[in-house]
Formats: sequence, structure tokens, C-alpha cells
Amino acid sequence: MNAAEVLRRIGEERPLVHHITNYVTVNLVANVTLCTGALPVMAHAREEVEEMSSLASALVLNIGTLDRVQIDAMLLAGKKANERGVPVLLDPVGAGATSLRTWTVERLLSELEIAVVCGNAGEVATLAGLSAEVRGVESLSGDAREAAEKAAGALGVTVAATGETDYVSDGVRTLAAGNGHPLMGRIVGSGCASTAVVGCFAAVGGAHAETVAGALAFFGLAGELAAEGTPDEACGPGTFEPRLLDALVGLTAAPDRLGGIRARELTRDR
Amino acid sequence: MNAAEVLRRIGEERPLVHHITNYVTVNLVANVTLCTGALPVMAHAREEVEEMSSLASALVLNIGTLDRVQIDAMLLAGKKANERGVPVLLDPVGAGATSLRTWTVERLLSELEIAVVCGNAGEVATLAGLSAEVRGVESLSGDAREAAEKAAGALGVTVAATGETDYVSDGVRTLAAGNGHPLMGRIVGSGCASTAVVGCFAAVGGAHAETVAGALAFFGLAGELAAEGTPDEACGPGTFEPRLLDALVGLTAAPDRLGGIRARELTRDR
Amino acid sequence: MNAAEVLRRIGEERPLVHHITNYVTVNLVANVTLCTGALPVMAHAREEVEEMSSLASALVLNIGTLDRVQIDAMLLAGKKANERGVPVLLDPVGAGATSLRTWTVERLLSELEIAVVCGNAGEVATLAGLSAEVRGVESLSGDAREAAEKAAGALGVTVAATGETDYVSDGVRTLAAGNGHPLMGRIVGSGCASTAVVGCFAAVGGAHAETVAGALAFFGLAGELAAEGTPDEACGPGTFEPRLLDALVGLTAAPDRLGGIRARELTRDR
Repeated sequence: MNAAEVLRRIGEERPLVHHITNYVTVNLVANVTLCTGALPVMAHAREEVEEMSSLASALVLNIGTLDRVQIDAMLLAGKKANERGVPVLLDPVGAGATSLRTWTVERLLSELEIAVVCGNAGEVATLAGLSAEVRGVESLSGDAREAAEKAAGALGVTVAATGETDYVSDGVRTLAAGNGHPLMGRIVGSGCASTAVVGCFAAVGGAHAETVAGALAFFGLAGELAAEGTPDEACGPGTFEPRLLDALVGLTAAPDRLGGIRARELTRDR
Repeated sequence: MNAAEVLRRIGEERPLVHHITNYVTVNLVANVTLCTGALPVMAHAREEVEEMSSLASALVLNIGTLDRVQIDAMLLAGKKANERGVPVLLDPVGAGATSLRTWTVERLLSELEIAVVCGNAGEVATLAGLSAEVRGVESLSGDAREAAEKAAGALGVTVAATGETDYVSDGVRTLAAGNGHPLMGRIVGSGCASTAVVGCFAAVGGAHAETVAGALAFFGLAGELAAEGTPDEACGPGTFEPRLLDALVGLTAAPDRLGGIRARELTRDR
Repeated sequence: MNAAEVLRRIGEERPLVHHITNYVTVNLVANVTLCTGALPVMAHAREEVEEMSSLASALVLNIGTLDRVQIDAMLLAGKKANERGVPVLLDPVGAGATSLRTWTVERLLSELEIAVVCGNAGEVATLAGLSAEVRGVESLSGDAREAAEKAAGALGVTVAATGETDYVSDGVRTLAAGNGHPLMGRIVGSGCASTAVVGCFAAVGGAHAETVAGALAFFGLAGELAAEGTPDEACGPGTFEPRLLDALVGLTAAPDRLGGIRARELTRDR
């Protein structure tokens, strides 16, 4: 299913996307979900996560401000989603920075059937056992393609490693999504937001590498359109963020503009 | 007291409005409170909620990301507010979606004297025992007027059911607030924000149906003004949200523009 | 080190600034940190705060939505930062409003070596044992200079009391930072954001009074530039906030404009 078809189905079905996520970027994540046409819901209490997850068409786990309460909630919600065959996505924010994060990602990957892992190059490299420099929640180095391919092979899931170019691998095939704009890296939460978009796409299109790459390219294209319109004298991350939300809505409403998507399959040469 | 008079008093008295609310829309809720002229404070620790509530002129309980810690805090703060005769407002976010939410709303309504319930049509219908479709925290159907009137009658409180038209009922009289703009439904938290505005109004004007309808119409009018000024080519929820805050401040500063408010009493025909 | 030199070093070193902060303004705080050139990270779980703090060049403690979990996290992270000689900053949000906040600030000051306290006049006056009117988290009165000087003398740390003019005292010298714009007081979190900027400056420049005053003047100057560009008809806090972030980036990129900073030493006459 290409991005235009996925977006059409999201708009028709209005799937509920359940996020268990951090309190830093949660508002952006919710708005991005809504702008993509899906319905966001955030719920973390152990008394309700299974019930909420039962209503959802995708579950997005983001460990940006992790604690024990969240780990329990993620396991409960994730098991329920697995029972129902609903895709579970994991954004391993800060994996490699602290052992709690690295260990939790390993536990989630071991106890749940994760459909897609979406992280930056450093986080994904950590999961693949490659060396990487992660400072807090920022990746300072790393070969995103190698990280995605190695992690996908090792974990047996679809893996996206985001960066200037995003790479998506299912362990056999690798796709590259080339859309984006440097201002996206200047706002807090663009990574979380891109994972949310992947969650929306997976809710109707599943966790195939093409769907994931299409979601990332769609999000990157929205970033390009948002930056295009920025007046030169006021070009900065503050005014860019609201324009990015507008661009997501604009693209969703005018899927013919999705011709700008640059996602392509690469020959896997390893 | 009409909206202009309420806003004048808020500006003079700078009432403190204590919110125990969700972490998704908390920043918007705080900014909307400040833009209306009141002072927002968020506090949830059981060690301080009673003391903070003692300083406040209204208490707004929003269950958007509910957990047990919050339920305890809401009960403690609510009882203190009740002792002091300060209005307690309840936004039953997601009531009907999970049993924790439905059960908590029932408990808060039973253990506290709630002055105003503000929710979307589906949430309010749930409280009234009517059938409703709630997907996560979104209402997908429901007759808002019937829901407000039935819930107000059953619960004995002022109830607002928001939607394209907002309906406010105290069980005897029903008012309709007709202001608003479709973009308000495209941003995460417009419901939470409207409840916050009702909280600001109730802080100085009490929980009368007219005051509640005036608050909702005021908020809707701000939405109309914010949308009016949006350039066509960049019309989207991202840039609309900051403009909505500006419009609230603009209306508060120029109450003569409040002539645009469309709140009227309906003949109750049930 | 003047502000231009501090900003140059932040851009070169990309220091990690660890925030344990409230959930109301956390997104703004993170974005302001990133716009100043540093890397923000938020982490509060007792299982990881020491490890995260070990990676950081400054630790900012903000008690805006305090609870027991956060107090434990602040003590653990603070002790680790103290061991490593990394500056610990404290924003005593709402000190004076509730005993939990006042008592927690006293405990943090007693158990940790705090390098800088940054608060509004009322909060700082509370720490200095002066009378002050604090309503929730807003200061309604108080002589900021006297508060800063008295608190610095009593506590033996650098103290900033923010307001129309910001005063910074180390107990011996007092500096005034005169930049700023009234719209900064109309957005929720400008105080938290200014403390975040001080944290970024302290990460490379230490906790000297000049560095703190330079940070506050820099932040205030960004506010002036953001307001300058606001079109008259749409001048409000909503559209001001994203412009403020843009202005921080603009100033960081063009340090020659830092000539607009108005920070000066005052003769201490008490």
C-alpha cells in the first residue's frame, strides 16, 4: 500500500492509536497523530492500559521519560495488543545512554512481539550491538543504514534508523526515505513525532518495510513543505513546528502532492 | 453576570485556578487560563493539594491521563474546595472508553460536590446512561443537547456537552452556545481548554448555566477570531493554536467585541 | 566569560543539560535548551537519574509540579552532580505557596550544593525569610534586588530574582539584567525557560554572577527581538512563544547582535 492509499484509509477508518510515551513531547505526538487523520489516546494506568489497548489499532511505546510504572504499563498493553494482532511499535529513546533504557528495550523486545523499532542511528546501533555515541537522547554518530540492517537481522523485526536519510530494513530488504529538512532536527520531539506517524500508518497498513518507509518519507515531505513556506527573516524551529502540523494536514488533504515522496528500495549489499 | 462582566472581574481579582489535569494538554490549559486573565497552578502531590486548593478560587479536575495517584489527589483537593465553597469542575475525558474512567467519574461525582461537568457529547451521554460511541477520548456520535439535559437532571449539577453547538443544562433550563470554528476540533486539547475557561469564569461568576454558556461562547468566539485571521495558504491546526491564545487575550482586552457571543436560552421541550 | 563567548562554547561543546522538571513547561524548557545550543535530557526514574546526571554538564531542578518521586530523584541526581563538580541549579517554583515546596527547597539547599537559585521575586524573598505574596506560582509583589541579595547572603549561593529587571547576587556583588519584554510574562513557563538558559550557560561558564546575569540578559534580549517582529494586529502570547524560540536561535547564530545585552554591575549599597 503506498502512502496515498494508507492516508486515505486512515481518514476513512479513524484508527485509535494508543501511545504510552514521554511527558516532554506528548503534546506534539498527539497533535501529529491527529493531523495524520488518526485518533490519539494516551493512557498509562495499569488499571486501564489493557482495556484502552483493546480499542486501539496500533500501540506506540516511547521510553523518553521512562520509569517503572511505564514499564509495567508497556508490558500489559503490549501483551494485549499482541493477543489481538495489533502492531506494537517501539521508539527506544536514549537506548545506549543509561542501562535502564538499554535494559528496558531488551526486555520489551524479549517479552513482546514488537512489529517496528524506530529510533535514531545511535539508538538503533546500540540495539544492534554496534558502537555508537548517544548523548542523552541525541545520536552524535553512527551509520544509520548499517544499524538498521544489523538490528533488523538480529531482532527479526522491521527497524527504522532515522537521520538525514532514514533507513528501513526488515532484515532482507532495505529502503531509504530521503525526505526531510534540517529544521526537523532543531525541534524537540521530531523523532517521537516520526514514530507516531509510523504508528498511524501501521494501524491501517501493517508493519511492512514499505509502509514504514512511506510514513517516514511522508513526515519528511511535510517538513520540507513547512520549511518552504517559512519567511526568511523568521526561519527558526519555533515557528517551524506549528507549520509542520499544518503541512501534515495539508498533505493528508491533498494526496496528489505525495508525488514528492522520495522512498526507494536499495540493493542490500551485505 | 454576562461574559464581559465576568472577564472584567477575572482581570481585577486574578483568581488562582487549580488544575489537576492530564500531561498531554497541560501546557495549553495553563496558557488558556493565563490568557483569560486568571492565574493557573498545577499541583497533584497528596502532600500539597489541599493547601494549594485552599488558595484557589476554582478547582478543575480533568481525567485525561488518569491514574491512582491523581484520583487520590482529586478527592483530597475536591473535599477541601467543597469545604471552602469553591466551585469544582470535572472534565470526564474518555468516560465511556474504559471502566477506570467511567468508574472514577462516578466516584468523583458521588464523593465530591461537583459544580459543573464539561465534556464532549459522548462522555456526557455516558454519564447520563445514554448509549454513545467514544473512541479513546473522542466522541463519535451522540445528541449533545439530550445528553446535557439528561445528565444534569440525573446528577443534579450544571452540565455542558460540547460540540459544534455547546449545550449547557442545569436540569431545568438549557442554553446553547453557538460560537466556534471547525479548526478547534483539529487541535488536541480544545475540550480541555474550554473546560479551563469555564473554570476561570466559575472562579468569579459561580457555576450558573449562564456563566458556563458564556464561557463556552467566549472561547468559541476566540476560535472564530483566530481562524478569521489565518492566511488561506497556511490554514491549519498548528498555526491556529497560538492564534487562539492571542485571540483570547485580544477579547479579554477588548470586551466590546464580546457582542459576537451567541449564547441563548432554549425552551426546554422535554 | 561574556555571553558571546559562552554561546560559542555551548555551540562547540554541545553540553548535555539534565532537567528534572515539571510537566507543564517541560516542552518549552527542552526547546529553549536546544535553541541555546545545548542538548536537553529529561529523566526522573531513580534507576537512572544518577547515570544520566553523570553524563551531564549541568543539572537543573525545577519544582513546578513537585512530588515525592521527584524529590528522591533530585537528591540522587544532585549528589552525583555534586561529586562530579557539575553545577546544580534550582528553580524554587511556588516556594512560599505551599509548605511542601518551601520545605523541599530548604531540604535541597541543605543536602545539596546548589550553585544557582533562579526564581521570581516572591519565591526568592521566601527563601530569604522576607515577606512576599506568592499566588500559586506567580509572584505578586516583592523587591527583587533585596530578595536576591538577602537570599545570596543567607544561603551562600548565587541567586537570581527575575522580574521586569532581573537581579543576580553572589552575596558580595549584585548585577542587574535589564533586557526583556512584557509578553514574556504572559506565557506560561518563561521563568522555567530563563532558568534553563542559565543552566546552559552554567554548563560551560560556571555559576558566576556575571554568567548568570549574561544568561538572563541574553534570554531577555531574545524576548525583545521576538516582540519586535510581531505584527501589531496579532500581538499576543500565543504567537510570541514560537517567535521567542526563533529569536534564541537567531541570537545564538549571530552573536554580534548580543551588543544589545543590558547587564551591568550595581554598587551594593546595603
